[in-house]
Amino acid sequence: MNSGFFASAVCADAWETHLSRQIITLTTDYGTNDHLVGSMKGVILGINSDVQVVDITHAVAPHDILDAALIVNDASRYFPSRTIHVVVVDPGVGTERRPLLVTAGSQYYIAPDNGVLSLIYEREKDALTVRHITAEHYFLQPLSRTFHGRDVFAPVAAWFCKAWQSASFGEEVEDYVRLSVPKPKADGNVTKGVVLRVDSFGNLLTNLTPDEIPALITNDAKVRIRVGNKEINHLSQTFADGAGAEPIALIGSNGALEISVNKGHAAKALGVNRGSEVTVEVG
Amino acid sequence: MNSGFFASAVCADAWETHLSRQIITLTTDYGTNDHLVGSMKGVILGINSDVQVVDITHAVAPHDILDAALIVNDASRYFPSRTIHVVVVDPGVGTERRPLLVTAGSQYYIAPDNGVLSLIYEREKDALTVRHITAEHYFLQPLSRTFHGRDVFAPVAAWFCKAWQSASFGEEVEDYVRLSVPKPKADGNVTKGVVLRVDSFGNLLTNLTPDEIPALITNDAKVRIRVGNKEINHLSQTFADGAGAEPIALIGSNGALEISVNKGHAAKALGVNRGSEVTVEVG
Amino acid sequence: MNSGFFASAVCADAWETHLSRQIITLTTDYGTNDHLVGSMKGVILGINSDVQVVDITHAVAPHDILDAALIVNDASRYFPSRTIHVVVVDPGVGTERRPLLVTAGSQYYIAPDNGVLSLIYEREKDALTVRHITAEHYFLQPLSRTFHGRDVFAPVAAWFCKAWQSASFGEEVEDYVRLSVPKPKADGNVTKGVVLRVDSFGNLLTNLTPDEIPALITNDAKVRIRVGNKEINHLSQTFADGAGAEPIALIGSNGALEISVNKGHAAKALGVNRGSEVTVEVG
Repeated sequence: MNSGFFASAVCADAWETHLSRQIITLTTDYGTNDHLVGSMKGVILGINSDVQVVDITHAVAPHDILDAALIVNDASRYFPSRTIHVVVVDPGVGTERRPLLVTAGSQYYIAPDNGVLSLIYEREKDALTVRHITAEHYFLQPLSRTFHGRDVFAPVAAWFCKAWQSASFGEEVEDYVRLSVPKPKADGNVTKGVVLRVDSFGNLLTNLTPDEIPALITNDAKVRIRVGNKEINHLSQTFADGAGAEPIALIGSNGALEISVNKGHAAKALGVNRGSEVTVEVG
Repeated sequence: MNSGFFASAVCADAWETHLSRQIITLTTDYGTNDHLVGSMKGVILGINSDVQVVDITHAVAPHDILDAALIVNDASRYFPSRTIHVVVVDPGVGTERRPLLVTAGSQYYIAPDNGVLSLIYEREKDALTVRHITAEHYFLQPLSRTFHGRDVFAPVAAWFCKAWQSASFGEEVEDYVRLSVPKPKADGNVTKGVVLRVDSFGNLLTNLTPDEIPALITNDAKVRIRVGNKEINHLSQTFADGAGAEPIALIGSNGALEISVNKGHAAKALGVNRGSEVTVEVG
Repeated sequence: MNSGFFASAVCADAWETHLSRQIITLTTDYGTNDHLVGSMKGVILGINSDVQVVDITHAVAPHDILDAALIVNDASRYFPSRTIHVVVVDPGVGTERRPLLVTAGSQYYIAPDNGVLSLIYEREKDALTVRHITAEHYFLQPLSRTFHGRDVFAPVAAWFCKAWQSASFGEEVEDYVRLSVPKPKADGNVTKGVVLRVDSFGNLLTNLTPDEIPALITNDAKVRIRVGNKEINHLSQTFADGAGAEPIALIGSNGALEISVNKGHAAKALGVNRGSEVTVEVG
């Protein structure tokens, strides 16, 4: 990889960490039953065989932009500087929706302009450049109308990490699509939130955080949490605190309120799903 | 990796591209719930830790040779020269069916002789060498009767890319098994084809291509496509062209006719599955 | 990777094989639908981007320690010396259960102290050192209570293979948790065992081996195997020996008795599951 030369000559992008092998992560709704993910990896390694391709997940709910946005936000913060995240949940593939190359903080994101990076825009708003990828000579030819994961996003990622010159891929844009992620609503001592995701254990991941409700991390604060037909009257520290089939509430590993059943499946046990209301009453 | 020496000394095989790390892909019906795939990777890396192992899929329908043949054909064409594809869908494991090492175009394939490479044979018929792997000193010992993915195919792949001498693995054979993939049948202006696969989105991938029906890519050609109880009267360009639950027809990313429901599951919506008939009437 | 220096200076651990890239394997019950596995990989590569991360499986049955113990035992024996296996099936995450760093034979294991390594302890009992990981400066901060895969086990693995000094991670312990795996019981010429796992093909993997029942590998030995309502009167060599829906018995690739239906799903066909009794009568 001769990228050192280009980078020092061009200085287009940040270069904080030297990775011995460049990382490209993949997050898609393609599933793993087909040739789709394999084809993307083939394209990347054909252009740049030094790359380490890392799967985040290919089991985003089909066409579910919010689901992908949450997963990419949670996972990306643990990757090193200069990681390139390719995110392909793309119901508008082949239409006028734009492909984007985003510099955000110390990392890079390549995705369709449909809001799937909304949480990244918010998190990295102080160090954000969004470009519309127009340099079609980086695309595979013939360009399909239905598989831009293979024909656009994969080759752009592989070419980008050869020289790190984001400006050569297209012009900056300001009018990129931002999805509005549901925000909690406070009314006196009651805050209403929602379940954003159900994880593979059945835990309910909510949009309620100590930022809005400091009592969630205050020792001995009194809270009453309502979800489904259940009321939970205190915060637990670990999943193992739960006894039997009773749901527990705790601050999850992403820093937000999480509802869980010890060794059980909270979503099924409570008949609750994404979008269901969760309220916290303090005091 | 000292393979440079062997290759220049022996010149047994093509050497078009220098990969900084050798790629071995895996396509199996082993699923990902067990130790099976992990064991194969362990064997490969134990022999040759420089290799990059890439999963195509491990979710081939169990024992389904046609399913694997289609996936390997679609994915392999996007990998670089000198990639080694290991394909293990092997209902005859432990019987007299032969293990094969195939040089096809600029790539290599290692698989049981059961037809799973049929589409590769057809695609690369002008640059094809098929060898019966008999060099048992490359196999793991003791050799199980039921897990040749681990004991035969994985170690052969890992040893092969140390020295690239295919002739040392066994003699050429001509009587390898070829599977007959269903072909479309034309009768006047009506062509009958079938659904070859249902992908993870529920899209129906057919065996009908513009090679047989040029009207599929002719602007303004009149076509009537029948599948299940539905008739589709024009070709779309993108999935997003579909309105509501109505099925659409388009040329998919592998170049063949595909039936889809925008943001829906065509196979379920139409009550159609692999093997179902699809007809195209032109004019 | 400068680990050569540390290793020769310190000589803390065995160093039999030189791997060009260090291997860390992952075995979890996290599934692949979430950011969880991706976050672990990000942490590892952020600390040590030279590492090759290899998935064994993330589909261990949730919280199922025995399931994970069997998978890790079967897969790990095929990996090269100095492989680090991270095993996170951890219903007690965040409680007082200890994180362990285990040197066993020529490999390393990092896992919670809940018995998930029991089969490794047994297999490698002559070359076994178990340490309680207490060196919290290797952990991610802030340390979550619910995701030690990301915050404890992944970073410990990545730091460990930079210098290979296991003693710097914590003191040896002797009172680690050992799970008792069901053992066969012999009574005269009848041995009772159980189904330990059902694999993805539906094959029944039992705890009956030729060590206890030599007739299983004796030519022409007479055996009668009972499972569900079926009796099987001879041992087959390959899956393909099975005719129609009749179950067959053979020695599987892990060396134990396995019940299978050729191209079928034995567990469903026989109405049998993990824990079901299997008896072998000899003579």
